[in-house]
Amino acid sequence: MSLLNDFERKDLAKVGQELYRFAEAMYPICRSITGDGIRQTLGLIQNRIPLRMVEVPSGIPVFDWTVPKEWNVRDAYVKDKGGNRVVDFKKCNLHVLNYSTPVRATMPLAELKPHLFTIPANPEWIPYRTSYYKEDWGFCLSHNQMSALEDGNYEVCIDSTLQDGHLTYGECFLPGQSADEVLISCHACHPSLADDNLSGLTVATLLAEFLAGRELRYSYRFLFIPGTIGAITWLAQNREAAARIRHGLVLTCIGDLNGFHYKKSRQGTAEIDRAVSHVLTHYTESPKFLEFSPYGYDERQYCSPGFNLAVGCLMRSVWGSFPEYHTSADNLEFIHPQQLAGSLRVCTAIVDVLENNRRYRNLNPFCEPQLGKRNLYHSTGGDGIAENINARLWVLNLSDGEFSLLDIAERSGISFSKISQAAELLRESGLLAVVPEDSGGETPQRQPQKETPNLSRLS
Amino acid sequence: MSLLNDFERKDLAKVGQELYRFAEAMYPICRSITGDGIRQTLGLIQNRIPLRMVEVPSGIPVFDWTVPKEWNVRDAYVKDKGGNRVVDFKKCNLHVLNYSTPVRATMPLAELKPHLFTIPANPEWIPYRTSYYKEDWGFCLSHNQMSALEDGNYEVCIDSTLQDGHLTYGECFLPGQSADEVLISCHACHPSLADDNLSGLTVATLLAEFLAGRELRYSYRFLFIPGTIGAITWLAQNREAAARIRHGLVLTCIGDLNGFHYKKSRQGTAEIDRAVSHVLTHYTESPKFLEFSPYGYDERQYCSPGFNLAVGCLMRSVWGSFPEYHTSADNLEFIHPQQLAGSLRVCTAIVDVLENNRRYRNLNPFCEPQLGKRNLYHSTGGDGIAENINARLWVLNLSDGEFSLLDIAERSGISFSKISQAAELLRESGLLAVVPEDSGGETPQRQPQKETPNLSRLS
Amino acid sequence: MSLLNDFERKDLAKVGQELYRFAEAMYPICRSITGDGIRQTLGLIQNRIPLRMVEVPSGIPVFDWTVPKEWNVRDAYVKDKGGNRVVDFKKCNLHVLNYSTPVRATMPLAELKPHLFTIPANPEWIPYRTSYYKEDWGFCLSHNQMSALEDGNYEVCIDSTLQDGHLTYGECFLPGQSADEVLISCHACHPSLADDNLSGLTVATLLAEFLAGRELRYSYRFLFIPGTIGAITWLAQNREAAARIRHGLVLTCIGDLNGFHYKKSRQGTAEIDRAVSHVLTHYTESPKFLEFSPYGYDERQYCSPGFNLAVGCLMRSVWGSFPEYHTSADNLEFIHPQQLAGSLRVCTAIVDVLENNRRYRNLNPFCEPQLGKRNLYHSTGGDGIAENINARLWVLNLSDGEFSLLDIAERSGISFSKISQAAELLRESGLLAVVPEDSGGETPQRQPQKETPNLSRLS
Repeated sequence: MSLLNDFERKDLAKVGQELYRFAEAMYPICRSITGDGIRQTLGLIQNRIPLRMVEVPSGIPVFDWTVPKEWNVRDAYVKDKGGNRVVDFKKCNLHVLNYSTPVRATMPLAELKPHLFTIPANPEWIPYRTSYYKEDWGFCLSHNQMSALEDGNYEVCIDSTLQDGHLTYGECFLPGQSADEVLISCHACHPSLADDNLSGLTVATLLAEFLAGRELRYSYRFLFIPGTIGAITWLAQNREAAARIRHGLVLTCIGDLNGFHYKKSRQGTAEIDRAVSHVLTHYTESPKFLEFSPYGYDERQYCSPGFNLAVGCLMRSVWGSFPEYHTSADNLEFIHPQQLAGSLRVCTAIVDVLENNRRYRNLNPFCEPQLGKRNLYHSTGGDGIAENINARLWVLNLSDGEFSLLDIAERSGISFSKISQAAELLRESGLLAVVPEDSGGETPQRQPQKETPNLSRLS
Repeated sequence: MSLLNDFERKDLAKVGQELYRFAEAMYPICRSITGDGIRQTLGLIQNRIPLRMVEVPSGIPVFDWTVPKEWNVRDAYVKDKGGNRVVDFKKCNLHVLNYSTPVRATMPLAELKPHLFTIPANPEWIPYRTSYYKEDWGFCLSHNQMSALEDGNYEVCIDSTLQDGHLTYGECFLPGQSADEVLISCHACHPSLADDNLSGLTVATLLAEFLAGRELRYSYRFLFIPGTIGAITWLAQNREAAARIRHGLVLTCIGDLNGFHYKKSRQGTAEIDRAVSHVLTHYTESPKFLEFSPYGYDERQYCSPGFNLAVGCLMRSVWGSFPEYHTSADNLEFIHPQQLAGSLRVCTAIVDVLENNRRYRNLNPFCEPQLGKRNLYHSTGGDGIAENINARLWVLNLSDGEFSLLDIAERSGISFSKISQAAELLRESGLLAVVPEDSGGETPQRQPQKETPNLSRLS
Repeated sequence: MSLLNDFERKDLAKVGQELYRFAEAMYPICRSITGDGIRQTLGLIQNRIPLRMVEVPSGIPVFDWTVPKEWNVRDAYVKDKGGNRVVDFKKCNLHVLNYSTPVRATMPLAELKPHLFTIPANPEWIPYRTSYYKEDWGFCLSHNQMSALEDGNYEVCIDSTLQDGHLTYGECFLPGQSADEVLISCHACHPSLADDNLSGLTVATLLAEFLAGRELRYSYRFLFIPGTIGAITWLAQNREAAARIRHGLVLTCIGDLNGFHYKKSRQGTAEIDRAVSHVLTHYTESPKFLEFSPYGYDERQYCSPGFNLAVGCLMRSVWGSFPEYHTSADNLEFIHPQQLAGSLRVCTAIVDVLENNRRYRNLNPFCEPQLGKRNLYHSTGGDGIAENINARLWVLNLSDGEFSLLDIAERSGISFSKISQAAELLRESGLLAVVPEDSGGETPQRQPQKETPNLSRLS
């Protein structure tokens, strides 16, 4: 079953519009790693896919970390002596330093300034800043805004609460034939940032929507979580599920105009790494591949040495490397319907590889079978050879039970999609049989590492 | 024993003339995959080397195929209303579609045209076309010839027979010290085509002639067979011999003006692949190496997954990639005496590597032995070092029983011939001993795959 | 403990002067592979480091070789008929063919000429020539000198002795925690040649001086030996010590103006090869790496197949490849204080890698530990990441007990020095524990090969 073929039947322009409208709906919400903003966002996702919302109480230990207090903010502003809101959370939720403790005070500009954050190099943009693990308060504003502030007293108000509550995340599980899982993870903790947040959320949601109800080889788990602490919390509370993850992707910054970048998993040559490499190389322009590094998004946690999961990170622009990153310029104009749709297509193609990447056995392994008598070959001797016939020859030649279809696609240079179609046709013609997975599939059961390494007493 | 040194003593110009005259003798014969043309050709080869001619009856199943009916043709023409032969088999045997069923009819041009094949891009050349496995009839002619045909009725005659008979192939076996075999295979089924057919036949024949009667390490098997069905027939009827093949080459298109191309075996790094790579790199200009693919000549069958033999394909021009391929332009002017001789020299050098590629053990493995006192070193300290002394140092240093002479040639960058001479000299000086092959030679016994894979019931 | 940090506290200019003055002191001595010249040189080294001087009697068999007679020379000259010394050993000790037998004679120029060696391409330079293993006598002189010789009789005198005595070498052993050894080897047998001889001797001596008295992981063995026969003699008489060598370097030609060249060990990817590659790549400009070859300095013996030790050769200019090599132009102007100091620094950095290259285990392997609460992370979310924090993340991520710090440095692209510092900090913070070496260190015990290979009877 080719998921990609099914997907290609859709009108990509319409898909793009749908993704974009969904991003628009989520854009205004003031999200953080806890609180009502992320709950409201997960509610919008829940309207489209079967999502379980999980609440984890503040104070619970998760590995080396602790689930933080819940933060909510209702209003925040700086008023000048004329009573004008010169910085106003209601105009843009980036204005408040995310996780600011409550404050109500009047102070001279000199006292206020250490609490103000700007980007001198891009004086019209508001930066996005957080202070999750060190209690603090502050405002983010454009450098021009700050330059315009005159000396004198200012009234400062952050109407927030930081108190015991919950960390909230969403989980969508689509069961497949196998208990082995594919993980799609994206962060849902950034306020009004489009590429870095909403692009991943919209594409992951519509991918789940597309897969839901289909007969799938793998089980799929979609996580919509706060960055870092969300991944850590999920991993700490789902050790058994984590051990079933065979392949995974973190999605981020996939709505902008750039070509694709893929950061490989810590393993580096895992099936997910090869599948993404194949798909991007065959279906997109000038993709770029980055080696794993331990700094980044939630692949940091999935690829920590105790888990070492085969999870890579799919991006267009690379987080941290473009000026709009973590600023008010990462807005709805920075992402585009066709780019979101292209990313969804790529994700579908990757899932299509994972679903169909099996090993086969040529049932006539001695010499070529006579394709002509089965109408699988051209009948008059000519010089060239069509790619579909070539794909059949490759599948027959390499299907000795050792090579997977992805191996064959890589070695032949033919797209996985064509190799997969050839295998299906040959199987239907009785020339090929699937190799059962338990007799040596590509995804041997991994034992999760024990939580307390024996060496811990050595330190 | 250096076969290459022996060969270099010959006059290469004379060798080229001999090869070319032999090609001239075989050129006019109308060969096909069965019939008297191939028998007559094998007869000419039999005049030079001990050749066993094997006849396999039509109708015999060979793996997934069936030995076809035997085809013979005596005459074929198209006559215009004036009774002139406007297409005449007697002028060129390419004119008849190979394996045409008999036909005698008169028909208007419009009815004839679907049976005519031309090459519009090269309007003076006659194409070579076949229809082995679909009964049909037709004529091949130059595009100019066809353009000159006026409307009106034509008398069409193909005086052929297609009936039960035999498939014929030739086999020349040269026994060596070991039962392990080297296979040299070439096709003998094309009519008047020189590079694609006769170049391989002539070089293989003279190589067998050169090796016959010598004391050889390996046994050599030369096959002169119809393409595809001949290889399949031989493999089906010689499973045990096939299992003894350690190294093999398919020879085709090795008489033209191009430099060498070598298509690697499916294994890709087999000893034959490395031997050919070494020889072409050291002895020829700008050789090119092609990865294995399952489309091509009879390496397709030898490298099918059930056999997976270490058989590559040696060419000058690559079949299918030059305009003269499968046309009347692949004639005696397209091949050249010195090119045929150069190909025979390269084949000899390859055989020389296979014959002499052994592992040795340095009998003074601790520090260098003192070569000076054995007159194997220069006696006055100087700056440079002659390549022959360098070859001795390399052989001594790497002869720990693990590295073969080809390994040493590859690592040192010195030609196999010089490395091999150095090893022989050191062995004579008592510094080196051959490692017996059964204690870990490079060619472990392969078990042939069982004919009926266990999985066949799954389909 | 960072040896490199300790070293960096020194004044490199002063270190250079010290090295250079030491070279100046050794320069005038007429060394050879035996005799008083090498004894006198070892005496100067003994003034600085604890050196054991070993005397091995002439005639003793060492593997395939024999310790030669001892050679000493007091004077040598060629006098013209006017009694003028036209060639005078007292002016330059290169003038005498090294190991010349004694001679006293008067002969015409024509008879003398076969005993004269010059360099026509560099007519002002005196060549350095030897005749260790073939008894002969001769003089080396500049080509200009020879051209000026007029016909007539010359008085020839070489006041040398060649008789039973000893071969002398020096050995400095610095014991460490482990019996496993690091070998530093340099030749001490060349007369007044600066780069090719003295540069290695001075750097090795000051490296031993720097390491002496420190607490070391490995034991260090410095060999100051005559080339070839010295290494063979040491290996023959120290089989057990040789079997304990885990890493080694031959030092030669490391005082000239060139950038570094490193010739890899026979193993090619040994830890020493990787350590040197890392150090040269991170700390020097445009280093070049040469594959192992069996011709060269004493790595030839250490890397002979019976030993196959992980010993490479560190150079600036490559011996034999520059015109000054083995001529009077390799003098004190050819080497430079800052180059000698830079070479000592590189050697220290290499030793630093070997000493500190351990494997660690992350004691919080599940997700990242929270570095922020330990003051090991920046506390406010920003875009960039400092290299020292990045180094910590890399060490934590890869410290699963499999990867060594050098592995981590290579994969991260961060210098070993920074990776090593990060590991130390994390260990002090209780986040990391050293993996004990016997549970799978990088340097498994090698069994030395038995002296008499079983195959020796085959020859």
